[in-house]
Amino acid sequence: MKVGIIGANGYSGAELIRILMQHPEAELSFLGSHSTSGTLITEQYPHLQGITENRLEEMNIDDILESAELFFFATPSGVAKDLVHRFVEEEIPCIDLSGDHRLKDSRLYDKWYKYSPASASVLQKSTYGLPELFRKEIKHASLIANPGCYPTATLIGLAPLLKAKLIHVNSIIIDGKSGVTGAGRKVSMGTHYCEVNENVRAYKLGNHQHIPEMEQVIQTYTNSDTTITFTPHLVPMSRGILCTIYGDLTQSLTTKDALDLYHEFYRQEYFVRIRQENQWPSTKEVYGSNYCDLGITVDERTNRIIIVSVIDNVMKGASGQAIQNMNIMNGWNEQAGLKITPVYP
Amino acid sequence: MKVGIIGANGYSGAELIRILMQHPEAELSFLGSHSTSGTLITEQYPHLQGITENRLEEMNIDDILESAELFFFATPSGVAKDLVHRFVEEEIPCIDLSGDHRLKDSRLYDKWYKYSPASASVLQKSTYGLPELFRKEIKHASLIANPGCYPTATLIGLAPLLKAKLIHVNSIIIDGKSGVTGAGRKVSMGTHYCEVNENVRAYKLGNHQHIPEMEQVIQTYTNSDTTITFTPHLVPMSRGILCTIYGDLTQSLTTKDALDLYHEFYRQEYFVRIRQENQWPSTKEVYGSNYCDLGITVDERTNRIIIVSVIDNVMKGASGQAIQNMNIMNGWNEQAGLKITPVYP
Amino acid sequence: MKVGIIGANGYSGAELIRILMQHPEAELSFLGSHSTSGTLITEQYPHLQGITENRLEEMNIDDILESAELFFFATPSGVAKDLVHRFVEEEIPCIDLSGDHRLKDSRLYDKWYKYSPASASVLQKSTYGLPELFRKEIKHASLIANPGCYPTATLIGLAPLLKAKLIHVNSIIIDGKSGVTGAGRKVSMGTHYCEVNENVRAYKLGNHQHIPEMEQVIQTYTNSDTTITFTPHLVPMSRGILCTIYGDLTQSLTTKDALDLYHEFYRQEYFVRIRQENQWPSTKEVYGSNYCDLGITVDERTNRIIIVSVIDNVMKGASGQAIQNMNIMNGWNEQAGLKITPVYP
Amino acid sequence: MKVGIIGANGYSGAELIRILMQHPEAELSFLGSHSTSGTLITEQYPHLQGITENRLEEMNIDDILESAELFFFATPSGVAKDLVHRFVEEEIPCIDLSGDHRLKDSRLYDKWYKYSPASASVLQKSTYGLPELFRKEIKHASLIANPGCYPTATLIGLAPLLKAKLIHVNSIIIDGKSGVTGAGRKVSMGTHYCEVNENVRAYKLGNHQHIPEMEQVIQTYTNSDTTITFTPHLVPMSRGILCTIYGDLTQSLTTKDALDLYHEFYRQEYFVRIRQENQWPSTKEVYGSNYCDLGITVDERTNRIIIVSVIDNVMKGASGQAIQNMNIMNGWNEQAGLKITPVYP
Repeated sequence: MKVGIIGANGYSGAELIRILMQHPEAELSFLGSHSTSGTLITEQYPHLQGITENRLEEMNIDDILESAELFFFATPSGVAKDLVHRFVEEEIPCIDLSGDHRLKDSRLYDKWYKYSPASASVLQKSTYGLPELFRKEIKHASLIANPGCYPTATLIGLAPLLKAKLIHVNSIIIDGKSGVTGAGRKVSMGTHYCEVNENVRAYKLGNHQHIPEMEQVIQTYTNSDTTITFTPHLVPMSRGILCTIYGDLTQSLTTKDALDLYHEFYRQEYFVRIRQENQWPSTKEVYGSNYCDLGITVDERTNRIIIVSVIDNVMKGASGQAIQNMNIMNGWNEQAGLKITPVYP
Repeated sequence: MKVGIIGANGYSGAELIRILMQHPEAELSFLGSHSTSGTLITEQYPHLQGITENRLEEMNIDDILESAELFFFATPSGVAKDLVHRFVEEEIPCIDLSGDHRLKDSRLYDKWYKYSPASASVLQKSTYGLPELFRKEIKHASLIANPGCYPTATLIGLAPLLKAKLIHVNSIIIDGKSGVTGAGRKVSMGTHYCEVNENVRAYKLGNHQHIPEMEQVIQTYTNSDTTITFTPHLVPMSRGILCTIYGDLTQSLTTKDALDLYHEFYRQEYFVRIRQENQWPSTKEVYGSNYCDLGITVDERTNRIIIVSVIDNVMKGASGQAIQNMNIMNGWNEQAGLKITPVYP
Repeated sequence: MKVGIIGANGYSGAELIRILMQHPEAELSFLGSHSTSGTLITEQYPHLQGITENRLEEMNIDDILESAELFFFATPSGVAKDLVHRFVEEEIPCIDLSGDHRLKDSRLYDKWYKYSPASASVLQKSTYGLPELFRKEIKHASLIANPGCYPTATLIGLAPLLKAKLIHVNSIIIDGKSGVTGAGRKVSMGTHYCEVNENVRAYKLGNHQHIPEMEQVIQTYTNSDTTITFTPHLVPMSRGILCTIYGDLTQSLTTKDALDLYHEFYRQEYFVRIRQENQWPSTKEVYGSNYCDLGITVDERTNRIIIVSVIDNVMKGASGQAIQNMNIMNGWNEQAGLKITPVYP
Repeated sequence: MKVGIIGANGYSGAELIRILMQHPEAELSFLGSHSTSGTLITEQYPHLQGITENRLEEMNIDDILESAELFFFATPSGVAKDLVHRFVEEEIPCIDLSGDHRLKDSRLYDKWYKYSPASASVLQKSTYGLPELFRKEIKHASLIANPGCYPTATLIGLAPLLKAKLIHVNSIIIDGKSGVTGAGRKVSMGTHYCEVNENVRAYKLGNHQHIPEMEQVIQTYTNSDTTITFTPHLVPMSRGILCTIYGDLTQSLTTKDALDLYHEFYRQEYFVRIRQENQWPSTKEVYGSNYCDLGITVDERTNRIIIVSVIDNVMKGASGQAIQNMNIMNGWNEQAGLKITPVYP
């Protein structure tokens, strides 16, 4: 099956290429990029020399439509919303890695994304592509809103508790730590090596655009308005997200009870791995892979649960999950192309 | 005034030397080390070549007592508790950078430190050396329990709220991120470069020994039992701690109100710097210095306050604060030797 | 085909496992480790959870011999030399990733490795496993001395010039820069995060054990004694080696001429990639892959050639090359299991 | 004495501020910046909060001239050359940290800097500010060309051999490794965290602009044309340069002989520290300080000498050396403000 990438010169685009090179069913037929069109992908990414020598092409939509049977949008925030509707009209499946189609309530875009959203009808058509929670819906979807990196780690971390009503949802606090790939390849003072190295910083306190995305999914469990606190941090590494999730329990629970609940919930999930009691995953343990690893601890002194959830933000937090969605949409083996052992160390 | 360092070959010891080299009143007269006695300090730390060429000496207490008029203990946990009492008997002032004399309730040592504590009488004599909160007591102290790195950042971050009773103390959650110097210079798998680099991990969930230390100080404000949640994380950098502190407010408050409160509370504190609204400090901004920098945000959606507090763990979190305590104990200018501009970048 | 790993708990062992998990022909049947025998491999390497749950076994040779049809020795220097001869006697193919079987002149071991070597007869049986230069010999070998990381990068960088007699061999200077995995997983002060981070150091000037290994291969081209200068450096990263190789040309040459020579020499080599004029590879561009990337520049002012050669030291510099050798020995597709796109960034 | 900084918002500017805050004689009276004029220095560098709150000012030369008695130019390449002549006319001492006034032969600027140089008369007036080699000239200078970072490390490393005629000058090869501050604070793909982290790269092979600067000084010893080879590399750290210098000896020499020569040559130099035989300095050992540390080894097998020279590129390679020059020009203690112990780790 021919697949295309719009926005191929960013880090998520490069990661899609890495996975697709080994994919048994999909074949890369189009690489689109506005800023670097006309150049070879190897000029942007010399590591691809000898692997794929495609040229990046300008994105004139009418020319593009026929170049592939499924498209990934690996574009910055605010780009896909103006392009995707044409693909929807033509009934060409799309997987949007940006946030442009994640929020159902279009009024939220103004507040959190600071731009006017895609049309309400297209937003309604989109399916939130977190396979571990919404696999059924994804099977029949034609427009996937691929989840954000922080929400992926957080929601996989919270779902068993939410479903079992074991957590006071308004007590939820998520403290996120991300590598710098999360900021994309665009140059800026905030991604300058010397500003990031040997440094940790918090950013966007109380107003990160992933907050409404997380709340939207949490509300599917609670059927009521929920507000959570989320604080992202930038740590000096390239890949990886670790979310430490805190919540007050609605009843007494031991760590063992909690682990049993998680094991049961994720019994059949290949990409979710749960650590034993008193062990917690680190980001390097999922580096380059599509896993989401969890560590669970109940702090009995405070009757609070603490979940440590790690992903590779470029994989399970972006391109790996996008491929996983593609696999499901096409009825292929969900793990196709994704059985990648983490690179350690 | 002659000062000595017990445990001079660790990172805190080396940092004490760095500060003392520029100190106008104190003169380094003794460097003690058990594991490296007999070697030159420059064999352990070539960066000191031409700066100080002292030899590390064995620590036969009777020989030591006269070698200095004040001693710093920069020893690992569990060493000072067996030595300090002799100095106390001889009325020689000591500043213990380890945790051995921080907890007043000696029963806590068994649980949190896994060793039997110093004698109750010596514990009672010790003064918790956080100058911004306990300056008066420090002035007359002869045995200082120098605070832990996480508690320093946390307690400076919380004190204004605690004093003003604006925070539900049992709602407090502290998410700490530390550089690797916090683990000391001892070799271990956990500090191997390849295990730390490009990696973030949580550790000691719910049972870090700094928890009772923080609770002990918080209880001086509440006069009642308090339990908090604290989760430390190791991030790939050498120096620096960032604590993100979350708490439910007891009343509505704007960020501006909160900032006013903090500015008032720390009006006369040279080493506490408060960022403007919507700005938060990063660890690199205090690198190599004795500052504690704070950023404050009220999340009005959840009526929660978030405090970002950063220190250099080797300085304000250890050796810098120890010198600050020495300055206060001796009636010297509190900033003597400590007006060090952060090294940036 | 069943394969075993002796020394499976080091970084090279873990990397062999990563590759073997995707290998179409080989199946992992034995994991040996002296220091961690009895534990699960996932206790040493949690990133392998759900991928392989094998137990590490003690290495009683008689029990081992039948557990696999080919063995990798991923042991520290000085271990394989005392074990391999038993496998040789039983005609079981071995690939030794350590330096124990690389030098033909057994007298060199005393000087460079500081230990007594394997028996001369076993040394004579061993084949130097650098496929790009010695593929024919490897095809019929039963004991492979897998090359060192620095020699791999260096010799691939030098071979075209050596063969064409374009370089004064005694003028060769190699300045190597390595990530910390090169030092193995053993804990030591030299691999402590805080000693490596934000730091570059040179080590073993003039006496690194890879010097005689490089000279031995260079002499196969010159048929005379040759001495080279090699200086290794440790840089703050986990994976990757970059060798900058300098040599005086025996005749005038343009960069273009030199590039033509290299393209011709490596025309059929999948794992060698040559950059265009004025472009040089960086280590990240081969991260996690089996490529050796080269950049070539003639400095016409000095009539000197400069070759920049990069590999992932854990892959092409160790485990990847070992698998490549296994593939050749067994007549399999040389790239089997090794068509791994570099992880970037 | 009032001093001003032109180009205060770069890393060298910030470092000058750090040093000047502790300087006993100089007082910072002017901070100039074109791109950020009108802002507070603390908006660019929050780490300076509470230390200096000056505002960055536009650089209208006529207004500036009276704002200080000595000026540092910490501007990017190509800026100072168009401004400095006005200061020269007014006899106001200047120290130019950029390369604009380093080369005496103005024809070299076209080739190596790709711009037209300052006027020949101003170039002739400038003094190369490497105190360990040209202290006498600096004393009477009014325009200092502050040396480049690589040349500083290299020339201090080579001078004793050059003076003693012990090295074949045309055999000199310098392999440099630099932290990322060397590239300045300007954002670019080359300084993006994810492009630098876990990566080493060579750049500008054979055409780095520091080559003619080094050759110019070497030729003061040889009185004949000399060509050297210099290859810079970017390593993943913020500060520090390590130059590994190779050269053929003109006569047999032991390492001990060489060390004696260096000790004698630098007997009275506070900022040059020489390691013992078989020890070599690492960049972290001079971090934040003005030292240049040297390790010397004679490779007797090849009759080649290898010098390892490290500096903090922002200090001895830029701002620290600029202050050292200011001290000498004014007859102050040369170490004033510069007795800074390296920050380790």
